[in-house]
Amino acid sequence: MTTTSPARTPAPRGRPRDPALEDRVFRAAIELFGRKGWAGFTIDGVARAAGVGKASLYLRWESKQQLLFDALAARASVDVSIDTGDIRSDLRHLGSQLLNMFWADGGVTYMRLVVEGAVHEEFAEHRDRLTHPTMLAARQIVRRATARGELPAGTSPALVLDAILGATMVHVAVTPAELRDVAREQSDKYLDQLVDLVLAGVRGTAG
Amino acid sequence: MTTTSPARTPAPRGRPRDPALEDRVFRAAIELFGRKGWAGFTIDGVARAAGVGKASLYLRWESKQQLLFDALAARASVDVSIDTGDIRSDLRHLGSQLLNMFWADGGVTYMRLVVEGAVHEEFAEHRDRLTHPTMLAARQIVRRATARGELPAGTSPALVLDAILGATMVHVAVTPAELRDVAREQSDKYLDQLVDLVLAGVRGTAG
Repeated sequence: MTTTSPARTPAPRGRPRDPALEDRVFRAAIELFGRKGWAGFTIDGVARAAGVGKASLYLRWESKQQLLFDALAARASVDVSIDTGDIRSDLRHLGSQLLNMFWADGGVTYMRLVVEGAVHEEFAEHRDRLTHPTMLAARQIVRRATARGELPAGTSPALVLDAILGATMVHVAVTPAELRDVAREQSDKYLDQLVDLVLAGVRGTAG
Repeated sequence: MTTTSPARTPAPRGRPRDPALEDRVFRAAIELFGRKGWAGFTIDGVARAAGVGKASLYLRWESKQQLLFDALAARASVDVSIDTGDIRSDLRHLGSQLLNMFWADGGVTYMRLVVEGAVHEEFAEHRDRLTHPTMLAARQIVRRATARGELPAGTSPALVLDAILGATMVHVAVTPAELRDVAREQSDKYLDQLVDLVLAGVRGTAG
């Protein structure tokens, strides 16, 4: 299985990579971005939160944007090679990955990414490199199912993705913090209901 | 028809209200919040953007939080008294209001509200006062339709709301800026497809 690997800094500058340090820096970067968004994201802030000297970060990343997107690319990837031969199973796989990603942080990182991409043009391009593989994968899942005759011709891949991505995101975001553990344990049940609804919906509105 | 009117500052402090000034301040507040989020939101920043003296804002609002939520309450309200007697029409009304709200600014204000509420506890309470009326309305729409026999017993109001709120939000957020005008003109068609999918889905998975 391949995973998405959006463009990362091609050659680390300055000094050889230290995976443990990189991991700490990436964690701190994503946490800071989730908490404060782009307006509160600085290389200095990441250095402080990660407990590393800021000089070493400036040596390695030439902009805060590059640092953030390296961090996101390394951690927020979705397996986009889903192809089980069965539409229900494919959509369950996709929804399950999205839901797990959202539960991990209350959906905050992904929603911030979408919001900042809508507001800052220089952000949109990076965002697309992270989110497009998932959208293309969803499109392919629907197209293959249509070709196999599992879904009616003319099924809109965009509508199917909007419903699954949107519902899982809202589901996580509106669950109060104190109920998250309980809701998270019922993720399988939620996905069953959601995927069943989408499939019955698509089939029921054909023609 | 009543509209949501979440708690506003009960008695304006300092000086009598000037509606034109208030309107300018509220616009500036929402625009700044949309662009920078909570981390970049300050009373000084709102004063600058609105072109008013910051002293007059400090006289009227005791915190940046109170200013922001007064602005949101005044502008982001959804008519929650929807009750046409027909589930399809009720959901179309609800979805149409959400979609219009999202198109107005690319969904940015609402998504920021959800994200900041997930991150900052002091924010969650205010957010709930703005978003709960919509959620309660959606729940009532589904319950009444179930009572009328339009929807199968046991239909999950939460799943219906997740699908409609989530899909409309994602639909707007992933539409590139240059395609927004075209997509917005096709809102009715999108809502038809979405509401049909949800209704067929709910009916097709009954029992």
